Amino acid sequence: MANGPSPVINKDLEGEFRSFLGLEGISTDELDLVTYGYDATRKNFPPSAVVWPVETAQISRILRIASREGIPVYPRGSGSGMTGGALPVSGGIVLALERMNRILDIDTENRTVTAQPGIFLGDLKKAVQEKGLFYPPDPASAKVASLGGTLAESSGGLNCVKYGTTKDYVLSVEAVLPDGEIIRLGSKSRKSVSGYNLLQLLIGSEGTLAVITEATLRLIPYPEHRCTLLSRFGSVKDASRAVLDILNGPVVPSALEFMDRVSLECVSAYMGQDRIPPCEAVLLVEADGFELDAVFRDAQVIGEICRRNGAETVRMATELQDRESLWEIRRNLGPSMYQKAPFKFNEDISVPIAEFPTVLQEVYRIGAKHGVIVICFGHAGDGNIHVNFMSHTESDPAVHRGIEEAFRLAVARGGTLSGEHGIGITKAEFLPLEWGGREIELMRSVKRLFDPQNILNPGKIFPEKKPGTS
Amino acid sequence: MANGPSPVINKDLEGEFRSFLGLEGISTDELDLVTYGYDATRKNFPPSAVVWPVETAQISRILRIASREGIPVYPRGSGSGMTGGALPVSGGIVLALERMNRILDIDTENRTVTAQPGIFLGDLKKAVQEKGLFYPPDPASAKVASLGGTLAESSGGLNCVKYGTTKDYVLSVEAVLPDGEIIRLGSKSRKSVSGYNLLQLLIGSEGTLAVITEATLRLIPYPEHRCTLLSRFGSVKDASRAVLDILNGPVVPSALEFMDRVSLECVSAYMGQDRIPPCEAVLLVEADGFELDAVFRDAQVIGEICRRNGAETVRMATELQDRESLWEIRRNLGPSMYQKAPFKFNEDISVPIAEFPTVLQEVYRIGAKHGVIVICFGHAGDGNIHVNFMSHTESDPAVHRGIEEAFRLAVARGGTLSGEHGIGITKAEFLPLEWGGREIELMRSVKRLFDPQNILNPGKIFPEKKPGTS
Repeated sequence: MANGPSPVINKDLEGEFRSFLGLEGISTDELDLVTYGYDATRKNFPPSAVVWPVETAQISRILRIASREGIPVYPRGSGSGMTGGALPVSGGIVLALERMNRILDIDTENRTVTAQPGIFLGDLKKAVQEKGLFYPPDPASAKVASLGGTLAESSGGLNCVKYGTTKDYVLSVEAVLPDGEIIRLGSKSRKSVSGYNLLQLLIGSEGTLAVITEATLRLIPYPEHRCTLLSRFGSVKDASRAVLDILNGPVVPSALEFMDRVSLECVSAYMGQDRIPPCEAVLLVEADGFELDAVFRDAQVIGEICRRNGAETVRMATELQDRESLWEIRRNLGPSMYQKAPFKFNEDISVPIAEFPTVLQEVYRIGAKHGVIVICFGHAGDGNIHVNFMSHTESDPAVHRGIEEAFRLAVARGGTLSGEHGIGITKAEFLPLEWGGREIELMRSVKRLFDPQNILNPGKIFPEKKPGTS
Repeated sequence: MANGPSPVINKDLEGEFRSFLGLEGISTDELDLVTYGYDATRKNFPPSAVVWPVETAQISRILRIASREGIPVYPRGSGSGMTGGALPVSGGIVLALERMNRILDIDTENRTVTAQPGIFLGDLKKAVQEKGLFYPPDPASAKVASLGGTLAESSGGLNCVKYGTTKDYVLSVEAVLPDGEIIRLGSKSRKSVSGYNLLQLLIGSEGTLAVITEATLRLIPYPEHRCTLLSRFGSVKDASRAVLDILNGPVVPSALEFMDRVSLECVSAYMGQDRIPPCEAVLLVEADGFELDAVFRDAQVIGEICRRNGAETVRMATELQDRESLWEIRRNLGPSMYQKAPFKFNEDISVPIAEFPTVLQEVYRIGAKHGVIVICFGHAGDGNIHVNFMSHTESDPAVHRGIEEAFRLAVARGGTLSGEHGIGITKAEFLPLEWGGREIELMRSVKRLFDPQNILNPGKIFPEKKPGTS
C-alpha cells in the first residue's frame, strides 16, 4: 500500500465524514492538502483529505470507515517531528488532532495531568507549572510540538539526563485501535505490574498501532531554582572526560549539553556577536532544585569538575537573564547551521556515555572521508549526539553514505539509531543495522496484530521489503 | 493444556536432554520434583523433570525440544515470587536458571552491569555497591530473589518512591523465544526510540513470552548517606496527609513506608519487646544522598512535615545501628503476622496516592464485613498497599470474597491489582476487573505471537476461559 496511488476520497465518502464531523471537520482543499502534507523534514506528501475530529467517538468512527474502505489514516499533531512520523506518505486521510487540545484535569494531590493529544507541549508544561508542578519532557520543539506527537515519539530533550524521557511519565492512555475500538491502558497508580505492558508498547510506536486520544501523565514538584554553567574546553577529549566525571559525581545535572567548535562558530556568526571565544568544545550544564543555596553549591561542584578536567573558563549564571542568554546560544544552534549549507541532516544517534569521545572522533572522520561538513552537538549526559551532516542538495549520495556509516558506528559501539527522533521514514531503511531479522519480524507481527489491514500510519518504521526477501 | 495431565518425560527424552545437559543437568528425582514445584505461595505442583542449563545455547536447545514435543517449560529463578509465577502448574519441565548466576561485566564508566538471570539480586547489588554503584530495585526478598525473577515480575520494593522499579533500569536483554531462537532487545544507550519497545513488553511479562538469559542494567552512583525517621501518628488520616505533604515537598524520600496499628501489634509481640508505643499508624521514612549534612537537613524537612501533620513522636536515626533497628521492625512485619492466623493472603493493590486514606478505610470495612482480620502496611509513597487478609484455612470463601472486593475497590479508585507482585496464578481470575475485554484479548494475542504453542509458562496471567466465552 505504501507505494500505491493515493486513495481517492470520493464525494460520497466526503459526505459521510461531513455528516458527523461537520462542515469544518473535513477538507479536500488543495491548500490544506499541501499544508498537512508537510512536516519538519521539509518533505511533502499531500493527502486526499484532512479531518479534524473534536472527540474520541469521532476518531473511532473515522477509523471504522477507513477500515471498511481500506484507506490509510495518518495521525498528526503539529508536524514538528524530525523523521517524517506524521507524513501521509500513501495519501489517504490526515487525522489532524489539533482541535483536541484541552487539559481535562490537573490533579494536584496525585500530581497528574490528563490532557488531549492536540495540546502544545509548551502550553501543558506552563499550565502545570502554574500549579507548582513540572512535566519534564522538553524537546527543542516543545513550544509547538503536540503532546500526542511527543507520546508517539517518546520525546526527550534537555532534561532527560536527570528526569528521563516521555515514556517515564505516562501513567495511562485512552486510544483508538485501527478498527475503531476504544481501549484504555495503564492506571493512575504510579506502580503497576498487571498484565503485559501494552502502554509502553504504544508510547514511541510513532502512531502506527493506535491513536492516543487522551493521556494521564505523572508530574513532579517544580524545581524553582536553576544555575547554569558554560564551560569552554581546549579539546573534545577534555570535555568528554568532564561529562563522565559529572555523571559519576554526587550532583545529577538537569541538563548536560555539548557543542563542538563548528557549532560555536555557526552560532556566534548567526547571533552577530562574539559571545563565546572560540574553543574546541563547550559544555552547557544546569543544576536545579528547591533551594537556591543548594543549587548554587551543586553548580559549584559541577564547575569544579569542569576545571579539574581542563576547562579554560567556567561561567556561572544564576539570574534568569544571564541564564537565558546562555540557553539562547543553545537554542540558536539549529537554525545557525544553515550558514554552512542549505540542507541539514540531523541524526540523533545515542551511545553509551563512555563511547562519546571515540564516537565523536569517528563521526568527524566519516565526514572528512566523504567530504561532508559534520557538526556535532547534543545531549552529552545521555550519550545522545546530534550529528548534523550539512549538504548543498536535498539528496546527496555522499551524505547518505556518511549517515549510514554513522549509524553503523553507533550500533557497533553499543548504541542506537535514535535517542529521541524516532525512525519514521528517514531511518526506516537503516533499522536492520540495529535489529536482527527475528526482532524486526516480531515488531512487524505486533504491527499486524494491532493493524491487520495496515491502514494506520503505514510506511513508517519498517524498511520496505525488497522482492525476494522476507 | 493448563489442566491436562502432566506430560511425561520418557526415558528417550530424558536421554536426549542428558546428552547435552550432562548427568547433573536434569533430574526426575521425586525430591527435586517436589522442591521445584513450590514457591512463596506455598502451593505445590510437581513437574515431570527439572533441568539446569548453564548457557544460553542449552536453553535454546531445551526450548526447541519442548516445542517439538509440546511440553510446557516453566522458567524458575529462586521461587520467591508471591503470585505463583514460577509454579509448573501443568507439569512438564522446570527450567531452573540457578546455575546461570554470573556477573559478566561491571562497566563503571558507563555505569552498567551485565549479569545472568540466576544471580541473587542481593549479590548483584552488593557487587556493584563495592564499585560505588547502586542498583535500586529492592524487593523484600532481594537476598534470595533471582535477577531473572525480578525482571519477569518488574519487581519494586522500598526504594521505588525515589528510584522507580525494575523496568526503569533494564537497558537490554538477551532472551530465548519459545521456539528456541535467541533475540537481543535494547542497547547500552540510556535513550533509545528505535523500533517498538519490545524490551518493556518482556519486562514484567512473568516469563510467559521469552526466557531472559542475560540483562544489562543501568546503575547510579551509590548514595552513601542515609537518615531514617520513624513517626507515630494518632490516626491513619494524619499519617496519610503527611505522606501527601512529603511527596509534594522539596525532598524525595528514598523510602516512605506505612504500617497500621495491627501491623505494629504483631511486630512488637513478635520481636518480644515494646519498641514502639502503640499508635494508629507509623511512617518509616528515609532520606539518602551523597553528603551527610544535606541528608540530615532533608530528614529534618521530612520530620517537620510529619510533626505539622500531627505526628505524636518523630524519631530520627543516622547511625547505621539505629537505622537498622528501625528497619528491622519493617523486615519482621511479614513473618510477625502469622501470630494472627496461619494463612496470609498478601495482596499488593496500588492506588493513586491521594486515594490512600479512603482505600485503607474501605479495606478495613471489607475485612470487618467478612469477619476477616485485615492488616495493612506498605509502600505509601507509591500508593502501593500490602493488604493482608489473615485466614485459618488455605481456602476461605470469606477471604476470597474480601480479596475480590479489595481489587474492585482499587480499580474503582483509579488503581491496579498489583503494584509489584504480578498476576501469576493467584490474581489471574481477577484480571478482567482491571482490564477490558479487548485489552485482554490484545494481551492474549501478544502471548500467541511469541508463543503460538503455549509452551512457555502456560496457565499464568490470563483467566481460564470458561466454556461458551471468548
